[in-house]
Amino acid sequence: MGEARNILWIMCDQLRWDYLSCYGHPHLHTPHIDRLAARGVQFQNAYVQSPFCGPSRMSAYTGRYCRSHGVTWNGFPLRVGEPTLGDHLRRLGVNPVIVGKTHMVADTAGMDWLGIDPGSTIGLHIAECGFEPYERDDGIHPYGPYDPAPAYDDHLRQHGLVSDNPWEDFANSGKADDGTLLSGWLLKYSRLPANIPEELSETPYMTRRAMDFMEQAGDRPWLCHLSFIKPHWPYIVPPPYHDMYGREHILPPVRSEAEKHTDHPVFRAYIESRICRTFARDEVRETVIPAYMGLIKQIDDQMGKLFAFMEARGLMENTMIVFTSDHGDYLGDHWMGEKDLFHDASVKVPLIIYDPRQQADATRGQKRDELVEMIDLAPTFLEFFNGAALPHILEGHSLAPLLHAADRPANWRRYAISEYDYATREARQTLGIDQNDARLVMVRDAHWKYVHAEGFRPMLFDLQYDPQELRDLGASPDHEAVRQRLYEALCTWARQHHNRITVSPERVEAMTGGEPPGVLIGFWDEPEFEAEFGKPFAERP
Amino acid sequence: MGEARNILWIMCDQLRWDYLSCYGHPHLHTPHIDRLAARGVQFQNAYVQSPFCGPSRMSAYTGRYCRSHGVTWNGFPLRVGEPTLGDHLRRLGVNPVIVGKTHMVADTAGMDWLGIDPGSTIGLHIAECGFEPYERDDGIHPYGPYDPAPAYDDHLRQHGLVSDNPWEDFANSGKADDGTLLSGWLLKYSRLPANIPEELSETPYMTRRAMDFMEQAGDRPWLCHLSFIKPHWPYIVPPPYHDMYGREHILPPVRSEAEKHTDHPVFRAYIESRICRTFARDEVRETVIPAYMGLIKQIDDQMGKLFAFMEARGLMENTMIVFTSDHGDYLGDHWMGEKDLFHDASVKVPLIIYDPRQQADATRGQKRDELVEMIDLAPTFLEFFNGAALPHILEGHSLAPLLHAADRPANWRRYAISEYDYATREARQTLGIDQNDARLVMVRDAHWKYVHAEGFRPMLFDLQYDPQELRDLGASPDHEAVRQRLYEALCTWARQHHNRITVSPERVEAMTGGEPPGVLIGFWDEPEFEAEFGKPFAERP
Repeated sequence: MGEARNILWIMCDQLRWDYLSCYGHPHLHTPHIDRLAARGVQFQNAYVQSPFCGPSRMSAYTGRYCRSHGVTWNGFPLRVGEPTLGDHLRRLGVNPVIVGKTHMVADTAGMDWLGIDPGSTIGLHIAECGFEPYERDDGIHPYGPYDPAPAYDDHLRQHGLVSDNPWEDFANSGKADDGTLLSGWLLKYSRLPANIPEELSETPYMTRRAMDFMEQAGDRPWLCHLSFIKPHWPYIVPPPYHDMYGREHILPPVRSEAEKHTDHPVFRAYIESRICRTFARDEVRETVIPAYMGLIKQIDDQMGKLFAFMEARGLMENTMIVFTSDHGDYLGDHWMGEKDLFHDASVKVPLIIYDPRQQADATRGQKRDELVEMIDLAPTFLEFFNGAALPHILEGHSLAPLLHAADRPANWRRYAISEYDYATREARQTLGIDQNDARLVMVRDAHWKYVHAEGFRPMLFDLQYDPQELRDLGASPDHEAVRQRLYEALCTWARQHHNRITVSPERVEAMTGGEPPGVLIGFWDEPEFEAEFGKPFAERP
Repeated sequence: MGEARNILWIMCDQLRWDYLSCYGHPHLHTPHIDRLAARGVQFQNAYVQSPFCGPSRMSAYTGRYCRSHGVTWNGFPLRVGEPTLGDHLRRLGVNPVIVGKTHMVADTAGMDWLGIDPGSTIGLHIAECGFEPYERDDGIHPYGPYDPAPAYDDHLRQHGLVSDNPWEDFANSGKADDGTLLSGWLLKYSRLPANIPEELSETPYMTRRAMDFMEQAGDRPWLCHLSFIKPHWPYIVPPPYHDMYGREHILPPVRSEAEKHTDHPVFRAYIESRICRTFARDEVRETVIPAYMGLIKQIDDQMGKLFAFMEARGLMENTMIVFTSDHGDYLGDHWMGEKDLFHDASVKVPLIIYDPRQQADATRGQKRDELVEMIDLAPTFLEFFNGAALPHILEGHSLAPLLHAADRPANWRRYAISEYDYATREARQTLGIDQNDARLVMVRDAHWKYVHAEGFRPMLFDLQYDPQELRDLGASPDHEAVRQRLYEALCTWARQHHNRITVSPERVEAMTGGEPPGVLIGFWDEPEFEAEFGKPFAERP
């Protein structure tokens, strides 16, 4: 194996941790991703810092918790001056490139205030969350606060797929027998073949764009963030993937009658919301899940092409490859749709890291169960490029110890944290609470998952005896001590420094125990000075 | 009384709350400040957000807690992109001017990263904590990370006081009988007359500079932050102030034998530190305190001149005047010197607000005992200038309700918070703890003062029965419930949003309950869409 030169960081959107065969799915075979896992490390307990796109990604791209970077919901701009992975890498001479989605919304007000031209190089980096935009594409064209005319639409038009919105009309619609378009926005049409040749659909297109980048990358080391919009909705996929899976491949929903009648106000508000009621329906599951599986199978096939492309160019010898997702998808489990809460279906993600360096030979093929957070990637990447650790800014921990030694490290983290701000959600309206109090925090240790709900009782799951998280022990009299311990862990974490980012530990150490030269505090007379500094008062600086 | 046009915000440095006659000092008569209090509101329980210059001031100037702005110690740069009061006022057409000290250290690394020229207008504002520098002067020339050749030094030289360091040699030294300079850095010389004509010393100089500004201010509304370095050390003052006070005017130290033998590790580490041992000595107190009182008396006399100047120009009719301090000074109380911990001598400050508006007639001369925080000033000032409240950025509360109505507001804050990071202090070395864990937080309510010490037991004082804070109940078995309640208040505060600064409450409200136009989640078919939106699916945006 080889040197440390590049990083390919592949992120899917809304890919559940358990919808890959290497993670145990019995019907969805993903041999290319599985092979990557066999050559690298597969993390069995990787958690995102929020189970929702924008917050999760801003944590991934800054290496910081949501409470630190402040982007607690989709569409909230990342403040100017929040340091990103791209900023850190650029200082190391590495080109940090985005191909695909970031969900970043630029802080245009902040740029205007600081006189930063959004069209300048720095302005562009700020707007792209620190990345160099090789191709930015957040999908869902032309909706949301993103580029309403992305290159992908033109690409489709150039290939004869012409309409006002080729993204929707071709890549994300099916067709009735009479030729009428049937939009993939409606779940009912998820099993139709998408109205597009497979090679023009979003996943192959973005994979090719990553290859285009690698072809053109030149000699400068790079991190390429290949960020797919799929298997995120609209749930619709072109042939042959649209009918690869049927009802027989659908796993039964993970849910219980007790959950359906939960007395937890927040959980109940979600379960009773329109979206969750939709996904709890059998016809919805049976229609959506095969399409979802097809989208993942398509990703796996593209991974096969991509890895073969890299192998042929010697890139497997010098490129770290990370495969992960920004959050999961309930798909009707726990009577929920989408993501939002902290069951593993939502907040746990697949994470596979292939490290080309010889040191990583000790762990190839390992499945590791240490608690890992998405914010660990940024320090892992800095370590790979021999950069300083920046612990005053980055709140995760380099995964290098887990990649380079088979044994469990002595002092690995005891708790994984994830946050969720439902201020803009229907549930907040249902519950009638203040927009500043709509906060949930998950604290997960090796045994338990605790969910703090501001203003309400917590939820608690015993992952050892109830790995499906069907039995909420948040009000159980027998578990008071566990809840208290995990609540303390939460508060300890919340109380820590999260914003002391302008001084490194080295700088703090250098300042310790003294005053700036020339400043004297509490010296009575010349002899006291001389006793302290070993020289006459007249010789002070 | 008049209109709302300007604000004069006077801040002393290291002025204890109780060293003014309006706050009860029996020997230190401060009639001019007292008169301001009689025309305004005097706050009896005003707390700074950290009992140390830099952190306290950054909170004052940003309107945010230390944990939010991240400047937890002197010399830590305020990150680029941290919004300041000056930024908010400038948008309202108000000129935010600094005359004197801020203790701001510019984030030059951040400016470099964002391509902001430190010499540009915006760069200058960032370097000056949002203020327009009419005259920036942090004292302590030429030490620390500030301008090593300030205008004050030249001013002294122009008046014939010529030396390499006229600030020290004239304004902050005395003289032996044989003409030898005796530096005010040494406490022993505090009672000597400073080697300077009174009118050239720092406080009158800076007062004149504020008057100069007002003369030249023109028609644009302004906030002038007149920020004195005194009565901060070096403790030395020119005649006639140097011998106005003697041993008979010194109040006995507030301290007990029990305190001296405290078993609290942090308190003990401080008491045993060199600086505190110095200030616990009687000769030190008896030498320093008269000089300290003289410096305050000099400030009061300058206030008399300043207010007369303003009166003569009609400025008292339209200018809000705030008089306060950035923290106190132990002066040997509790066996402590300097500031650092959270006894009232250190963390409580005088705060007097004179509001010229007619609405404030209802409260003139009131002494109010509501809990007030220094971060309340920024929103108070925005209200004065009819600006939006910006609660997603500013963490304090406008004092307007306390200035405009005599009754106690129904929902005023229950807890005042102050923070302290001793990572760079001798005490941290003594205790041998990690630099990230050297954190103290005070939670003070109407009855109790609770001090959380990360990794140690808390301290607790019953302010009702022990207003001198001599009896630490932090380990008392009878006070478990009180400690638990205040610990909960601390954790509740720590868990709140502190960085969600790019979205206003109005924006959050507008986003609530819906998706961006065009984005559909969880709709099965066309009739479901129509039922939700009242129009056919074909007519969606």
